[in-house]
Amino acid sequence: MPASEKSLIRRIRQLSGKPGVARIPLGIGDDAAILRVPPGHEVLVTTDLSLENVHFRRDWHPPESVGHRCLARGFSDIAAMGGQPIAAFLSLALPATLPQKWVDGFLRGLLALADQHGVVLAGGDTAQSPGLGSSANILADIVVVGSAPRGEALRRSGATSGDSIYVTGKLGASALALEALFAKPKTRLDPKKYPGHFYPQPRLAVGRYLRDRGIASSMIDLSDGLSTDLHHCCCERRVSAEVAAERIPRAEGATLEHALHGGEDYELLFTAPGNRKIPRRIAGVAVTRIGKIKSGPTRVLLLEGLRSQELAPGGWEHFRNPRRSP
Amino acid sequence: MPASEKSLIRRIRQLSGKPGVARIPLGIGDDAAILRVPPGHEVLVTTDLSLENVHFRRDWHPPESVGHRCLARGFSDIAAMGGQPIAAFLSLALPATLPQKWVDGFLRGLLALADQHGVVLAGGDTAQSPGLGSSANILADIVVVGSAPRGEALRRSGATSGDSIYVTGKLGASALALEALFAKPKTRLDPKKYPGHFYPQPRLAVGRYLRDRGIASSMIDLSDGLSTDLHHCCCERRVSAEVAAERIPRAEGATLEHALHGGEDYELLFTAPGNRKIPRRIAGVAVTRIGKIKSGPTRVLLLEGLRSQELAPGGWEHFRNPRRSP
Repeated sequence: MPASEKSLIRRIRQLSGKPGVARIPLGIGDDAAILRVPPGHEVLVTTDLSLENVHFRRDWHPPESVGHRCLARGFSDIAAMGGQPIAAFLSLALPATLPQKWVDGFLRGLLALADQHGVVLAGGDTAQSPGLGSSANILADIVVVGSAPRGEALRRSGATSGDSIYVTGKLGASALALEALFAKPKTRLDPKKYPGHFYPQPRLAVGRYLRDRGIASSMIDLSDGLSTDLHHCCCERRVSAEVAAERIPRAEGATLEHALHGGEDYELLFTAPGNRKIPRRIAGVAVTRIGKIKSGPTRVLLLEGLRSQELAPGGWEHFRNPRRSP
Repeated sequence: MPASEKSLIRRIRQLSGKPGVARIPLGIGDDAAILRVPPGHEVLVTTDLSLENVHFRRDWHPPESVGHRCLARGFSDIAAMGGQPIAAFLSLALPATLPQKWVDGFLRGLLALADQHGVVLAGGDTAQSPGLGSSANILADIVVVGSAPRGEALRRSGATSGDSIYVTGKLGASALALEALFAKPKTRLDPKKYPGHFYPQPRLAVGRYLRDRGIASSMIDLSDGLSTDLHHCCCERRVSAEVAAERIPRAEGATLEHALHGGEDYELLFTAPGNRKIPRRIAGVAVTRIGKIKSGPTRVLLLEGLRSQELAPGGWEHFRNPRRSP
């Protein structure tokens, strides 16, 4: 049965949180949702598009994973600001031939992650065209609205010379799974064996801990890959970064290239003053010092033994291109 | 020249408002945007998808009109709550072959309307797949974040027996233009002759006036058509509505059917206590009393001379279907 527009809105309404909870006086069904932000807080807003055959493939990713990853991208952005998510909004464009079962699985995956963080799906929109055949792509746009105390949200731009560079968790798990998928495109991977790719965990608690204690001088989430995202931070203040290859925590089976350039790990990358003591684990997640910030020019140096090489922003093209257009 | 993803973000950054303005400490370029809401206000959030061949056609609508209408839908939702828009967020999925000129025109139209209301484009996302050919559709998802004093945002649900029913402006202009387009699909209409369709004006000032003075008991914007939207209001409280056909203000050339069922006029429909005096014009826009709310059951009656007929929700299918899937 194809998922009709009305049944989809009804289903989201059934599955999503009821309005009337403290922070969401009004949810799906009026012209706009109403949200309450804690007194003294600023509003954080992030939007992320997930497009079939760009960010996921129907033959590779179960719908639950697509829904989870879609929301994880938004949560990870809020985590990188040290924020608390309040509500999510989902816009879905669907080919008319898409089975209702796929949409149900997608919503299940998305809402399970929302529930886990106490966040309500408070609105959205759907569009569907009978003119679009089965070759049309699924598109999901997720908006996450959150908050942080006024003036305290962490930005990409605060890194200064002398700061240490840290990452949470282990890197490269997502690229490792993608490599396996590209190597054997007809074979399905078991999501349980590759949770870092199929069900990445946004580091909301770690982000809030770091913001709350004023530890981090800058923060970004690792969506594009360490080499690219670290470059983003350096660009903002015209500083350079030195990273020790052997310090970079790698997921099991992941190579240095996976960890450096792979992207979509949704771990946090942050800087803190060199003399600041940082716990080895925060909210159950390992935190590893991988390098330091030096004065300009803007560049990222990778130190391997006695050698040092400059990492170009944008990562390695052979990881980037296939991911962007499988 | 096709619009590349990076050049699009750069262009939005160039064209959109600079962060640092009072309500938007941080705009495009970090993990999330930061917005400030006036003290004592709640946050309003609305999302609207605009999909090519569902909401617009490239051969019928100039890109400036598509951009304008895309944002007008979001502004109109905020207007219907009596809110003040603060920032807009745009997610765009584009076929790889789309000329940069089209994207520029789209952004020009969108930003002109944003400027007119002092609203900044504070973020967004883009996706583009080399795998999508020229047959792929353009998709734009617009998010508008606004605010209203706590507890004062107007909802669809406040209409009670004895209230009068009002609309702003004139109805049917958009349906009239669509009918002309469907009648001669190869002919282009002059947007200047059909401004209500190509450049509808969201009634933000009227919405705020009504909320500010506590005049309206319920409000909704006319996006789906008077018959459908009035039914939405009645459903919420299980009341009935009686509308006098000859009272409905029609755009020049529009029939009663255009005005009743056409949709996309983006005027406001509101109710107010029967004894409340309502100005004939608010913020330069005509306000017309068209009927009254009675006690249940939920239905909308159209009075024409001595006859009365029940209007089905959903409007007339011959207006709805072609608009949804031209």
